[in-house]
Amino acid sequence: MTTKITMEEMRAAYQRTAPFLHKTLVITSENIDEKVGNGTHVLFKCEHLQKTGSFKARGALNSAILAKEKNAKGMIAHSSGNHGQALAWAAQKIGLPCTIVVPKNAPISKIEGMREYNANIVFCEPTVTSRESVCADLTEKLEYYCVEPYNCVSMINGHSSVAFEILEQVGNEIDSIFLSVGGGGLASSVAFLIGNLRPDIEVYLVQPAQKELSNFLENGIKCPVDTLDTIADGVRVARVGPLCEPILKQYCAQKVISVKEDEIKEGLKLIWTRMKQRIEPTAALAFAGVLYHKPAHIKRPLVILCGGNVDTNYVIN
Amino acid sequence: MTTKITMEEMRAAYQRTAPFLHKTLVITSENIDEKVGNGTHVLFKCEHLQKTGSFKARGALNSAILAKEKNAKGMIAHSSGNHGQALAWAAQKIGLPCTIVVPKNAPISKIEGMREYNANIVFCEPTVTSRESVCADLTEKLEYYCVEPYNCVSMINGHSSVAFEILEQVGNEIDSIFLSVGGGGLASSVAFLIGNLRPDIEVYLVQPAQKELSNFLENGIKCPVDTLDTIADGVRVARVGPLCEPILKQYCAQKVISVKEDEIKEGLKLIWTRMKQRIEPTAALAFAGVLYHKPAHIKRPLVILCGGNVDTNYVIN
Repeated sequence: MTTKITMEEMRAAYQRTAPFLHKTLVITSENIDEKVGNGTHVLFKCEHLQKTGSFKARGALNSAILAKEKNAKGMIAHSSGNHGQALAWAAQKIGLPCTIVVPKNAPISKIEGMREYNANIVFCEPTVTSRESVCADLTEKLEYYCVEPYNCVSMINGHSSVAFEILEQVGNEIDSIFLSVGGGGLASSVAFLIGNLRPDIEVYLVQPAQKELSNFLENGIKCPVDTLDTIADGVRVARVGPLCEPILKQYCAQKVISVKEDEIKEGLKLIWTRMKQRIEPTAALAFAGVLYHKPAHIKRPLVILCGGNVDTNYVIN
Repeated sequence: MTTKITMEEMRAAYQRTAPFLHKTLVITSENIDEKVGNGTHVLFKCEHLQKTGSFKARGALNSAILAKEKNAKGMIAHSSGNHGQALAWAAQKIGLPCTIVVPKNAPISKIEGMREYNANIVFCEPTVTSRESVCADLTEKLEYYCVEPYNCVSMINGHSSVAFEILEQVGNEIDSIFLSVGGGGLASSVAFLIGNLRPDIEVYLVQPAQKELSNFLENGIKCPVDTLDTIADGVRVARVGPLCEPILKQYCAQKVISVKEDEIKEGLKLIWTRMKQRIEPTAALAFAGVLYHKPAHIKRPLVILCGGNVDTNYVIN
């Protein structure tokens, strides 16, 4: 498998995955622009409309194609959400068996999503230890290729296609990109590519306040908890991966924005009611960064709406 | 004001309103096509992305421009939903005062929508009698132009822009149009235009089963109730307007499809979860007609997603 995060590998990943992916829409809303105010024009990259309902399909597909080229017997991961659905879809697309280790308290809708793509589901206890040990045992036994959700070179190189598309679609219209940061897979991919190709475009990382990513990137002090208490369930992992850390330090150390839970909810409400796009709370996190904490000099931000996998009975309280 | 529903008036309405409206997207989904099956390719016209979140903005704007040309002092209507929001927006856009008579049990979100466009809200009792009498009194007192939601020539002529757009965008790709029918404003507008310009495209009216529109169009027997008990709140009015009746008899008498409540819910779930579009139940009604009751010869149906105004706490049970 690829072992480096490089512009060359990112270009190759974009080329090999593009035929199977959606080039997702970039949309705008006059009503949202009025709400944000100060003459700001916000653009939204619709990754909730990507295959499997999140950007994860990009990296997962790149990983699956590379695994197939290396004659992998199958793919495996542990996931309770978007990563598992994306990997199951990618494996089916490429013709590889796929096993997902799922904590037994995972939402039924996500499990059904994985099953729809013919993944083999193995349940484990709802703890990080159980997820990792069950997955490690199965990886060895099945001799499958194990794909980490964010700390993974082929995922990071694969995700970069979203940044290539942004530059092609609206590269000359934006001054910044705002994205939600969890483990750092999407963040490091976009920051690396934009930092190399278009360093004039600022990449902002939007986090739930409890994450304290600035303190880590600037002072090396790790977040004291493993898991964040936030409605943005896609970024509950508190710490960024070791592969992501140096990239984020280099490109985004001064560009971390903290958002409160109520601000995420307000952002979510606005996008649901005004744009009629059924995004998930984690996607609203990035928008809340623009809505409430945008630096004054930013006038043309692009928000990556990272996903739209939310249960039909989910209510904004 | 215009007194006739004609192709000429429809063309004029399209021309005068287009600069202020969205030419809404037509979207598709491989996943939905698989669910519908039989090699069907479904297209969706996104009126939930229209100004004010529904197609009603089209007719309302046409009505407002014509009212302004006739030196009307203002516009007035009674509404608890999309019509009121659309009219308030159109009046503000054109620079006319607007009063909406609103039953006092109307959803807060809709009332806020009207207020956002600076409409003057007058509350009445939540009965048809109260709505009509309060509105009639105010119309006389204020000397405003009163705009009926569906039984109104300028609304019907104005709505036709959605059909002009469909023909321009995908006229050569579709064999039919499915739409939800309530009072019949959208239905008669689309049926009239398509029947005149492209009679090879079949227009299907999708109704909640209780409406019994076939029995009316074929046998003249009116629905025994005034208001339907359905989650599709945009089509609760049981009978079509007198202006709509002859048009629907001429073009759609044999093309009425009845849908059960559970089928509307399933259609809504699919569009929320697979297409991530936050449509309202009334829009899902038209899709449910395709999903469960599409005639076998139909292979390229276009579904009009008529609106997306649904409260953030709405849950599909």
